[in-house]
Amino acid sequence: MNLDDQEFLRLLGSRIREVREKKGWTQAELAEKCQLHRTFIGSVERGERNLSLLNLRLIARNLRISLSTLFSSGPI
Amino acid sequence: MNLDDQEFLRLLGSRIREVREKKGWTQAELAEKCQLHRTFIGSVERGERNLSLLNLRLIARNLRISLSTLFSSGPI
Repeated sequence: MNLDDQEFLRLLGSRIREVREKKGWTQAELAEKCQLHRTFIGSVERGERNLSLLNLRLIARNLRISLSTLFSSGPI
Repeated sequence: MNLDDQEFLRLLGSRIREVREKKGWTQAELAEKCQLHRTFIGSVERGERNLSLLNLRLIARNLRISLSTLFSSGPI
């Protein structure tokens, strides 16, 4: 994984965190909604995980945000 | 993988194919640009692969399309 990829995952993770925090949810609450482990959500938000597309879709759907919006540079 | 996920991957694959064909590239040409195997590209386009986020990013970047546009329902 090159630095550019790491930065991409880091930015995506911080956008996911931003959306989660706007909803007032903890990582554990988001994890439970997704049926994923809390530590998995934590690693995604820190940009440490090259997650699969379907797991990303699962997280986005539970956060009620489209993948298109999640990947845009616009406001959340 | 449920039916809804399969349909999601199938639609995404067909959008990737659409962009590739608009460029007049073969699967082999796209694969070479991405340093991925041709059969991998084929399986992605058929919606048979829950690919990683970084592999999707790699494909999108070589196709010169943003992930936001790829996931939007709008024209390519």
